[in-house]
Amino acid sequence: MELAILFGGASFEHEISIVSAITVKEKLSSFDLKFIFCDQDHSFYLIEADNMMAKTFASGAYKKMPRLTLDIGCFVQKKRLRSDKYSFKVLNLIHGADGEDGTIASLFDFYKISYIGPRMAASVFSYDKRYTKWLADALGVKTLPYEVLFSDGERKIKTKLPFIIKPSRLGSSIGVSVVQEESQIDYALDVAFEFDDSVIVEPFIDGVKEYNLAGYGAGDEIRYSMIEEPQKDVFLDFDKKYLDFSRSTTVSAADIDDAAEEKFRQVFKRIYRNLFDGALIRCDFFMIDSEIYINEINPIPGSMSNYLFKNFEAAIIELLENLPVRREAGIDYKYIHTINAVKGK
Amino acid sequence: MELAILFGGASFEHEISIVSAITVKEKLSSFDLKFIFCDQDHSFYLIEADNMMAKTFASGAYKKMPRLTLDIGCFVQKKRLRSDKYSFKVLNLIHGADGEDGTIASLFDFYKISYIGPRMAASVFSYDKRYTKWLADALGVKTLPYEVLFSDGERKIKTKLPFIIKPSRLGSSIGVSVVQEESQIDYALDVAFEFDDSVIVEPFIDGVKEYNLAGYGAGDEIRYSMIEEPQKDVFLDFDKKYLDFSRSTTVSAADIDDAAEEKFRQVFKRIYRNLFDGALIRCDFFMIDSEIYINEINPIPGSMSNYLFKNFEAAIIELLENLPVRREAGIDYKYIHTINAVKGK
Repeated sequence: MELAILFGGASFEHEISIVSAITVKEKLSSFDLKFIFCDQDHSFYLIEADNMMAKTFASGAYKKMPRLTLDIGCFVQKKRLRSDKYSFKVLNLIHGADGEDGTIASLFDFYKISYIGPRMAASVFSYDKRYTKWLADALGVKTLPYEVLFSDGERKIKTKLPFIIKPSRLGSSIGVSVVQEESQIDYALDVAFEFDDSVIVEPFIDGVKEYNLAGYGAGDEIRYSMIEEPQKDVFLDFDKKYLDFSRSTTVSAADIDDAAEEKFRQVFKRIYRNLFDGALIRCDFFMIDSEIYINEINPIPGSMSNYLFKNFEAAIIELLENLPVRREAGIDYKYIHTINAVKGK
Repeated sequence: MELAILFGGASFEHEISIVSAITVKEKLSSFDLKFIFCDQDHSFYLIEADNMMAKTFASGAYKKMPRLTLDIGCFVQKKRLRSDKYSFKVLNLIHGADGEDGTIASLFDFYKISYIGPRMAASVFSYDKRYTKWLADALGVKTLPYEVLFSDGERKIKTKLPFIIKPSRLGSSIGVSVVQEESQIDYALDVAFEFDDSVIVEPFIDGVKEYNLAGYGAGDEIRYSMIEEPQKDVFLDFDKKYLDFSRSTTVSAADIDDAAEEKFRQVFKRIYRNLFDGALIRCDFFMIDSEIYINEINPIPGSMSNYLFKNFEAAIIELLENLPVRREAGIDYKYIHTINAVKGK
């Protein structure tokens, strides 16, 4: 089965997307894989499988590889005498900006490229942590209390120490700090505001139980991965998460009973339904006093959370067979014809 | 001042976008205007000002005009021996799908085209009426109670008659019905579901006072239009709204006192801030028992609500001078270099 992996992007998570793509390449070895790199200037390049190593990108060597442009229904490679057109189905594996913020989704919807990944509205609600809170509230899913600060506003925080400060719109723990005492607040805010104009502040709960569950839609069904209780170290900083994006060994399931597992699935379903079709997402939950809280929705999880699925290739095939189709508007110029008829034109 | 008007789109509102563009052309007569038509297949065409009449599009004559494609920072017109590049600033005047749903916003953000219009998140929250409710709730802005029905779900409505049924994601009154009695429900739902997989149901309040206010951001300030009390006829159906998109005569302001006007502006500001930068939007409000309710946010109002501004050209110039700039991620391959250094590569 042919599939193009799209990675890179003009994002703070550009590099982990490269790591993610190299990992997924190994996990989808029975596919006929193509690789499309989006560089920080938003040019696309077709990369041979043999060149799928970090130094191709870090050294700039990719710039000698064929450049692709987009046209309706295809990527185009211009050659001296003709153009080759590629109607790839694409796995959007750009983490952070471009990939997870809805830009690539819109681009592909516009150009009618079929893709695995969150659609635009799903991206907006998962990429910005403020909007994830709104989504959770609207769906009746529990989430930690929070407050929002803006870079041009006052630095008054009502949340009690210790708390966690995060840029509103980044993943992979970039710019995130746990603040234990008041003297650390200003620095933590400076760091977070380097990455976004708004930050969210949430209580930090030491030793909170975390559970990760991935899944995707297949027709009326949702297919769930196993649930993992991720190991943690206060919280994963960027360096550790970076390694996390290269995970490829199947993990062991969290030690929870069937009833608890079913509860996680019900919350997952409430979030996924009518919003995330076409995407394989990972929900990162907290469990507090036997209640499930949504912490984060990863609509393009690192290395597609392959390690949570018993048969990752089968999952991707099933997802490809269940991609949503965009409703087309019929345009018949009925109103214009009516008006012109009245005018005698 | 040079400005390209983008109109058309693969949208149920394709035709009113054409009407809107023809109206705006007249209202920005001192500009050096260009016209870019997006047809229902998503091809762009450069249209001469003289050809800006409805029949150019309804007859298909536009297909003989120069086709444009997008590249980084510009539209490109391929000629026999060379390509012409146009770095237009664009006024996004595509109503409904493509224009107001965030697709064009993402496309232009990706290709670094400067544009007037809502950005992606702003589009998602204004285009889908469900998400407008969530936005209002999160911002503490009043909105009518509502329920959501899905095309594949049960047709049980708790709202008391009379009520209004609307497709979640369309503007211009398309697919909207006022339901006065139970026998009308099924037909009204059928009509709405023709346009979207989800619909919202809201109480219909006969004779409710409506007020429209447009505005845009200029640095730290918001510039407000006058407030209009639109004339109405139960509610504007599509034919009437269609004519509404060609409005060009400045209206008279609603008969409200300064304190009431200030209240509308405060609610407008709460909605606009940190979300709608770069756009000229129109908020359609209800006034019930002296309380302001947001009914609808039009992030690309028909003919840009030119008729609400005393000096529409000056407004567009000021908006062009205050377009938001997207934050760029610095990519230095630091992590890849670190890892390769450790590996000795």
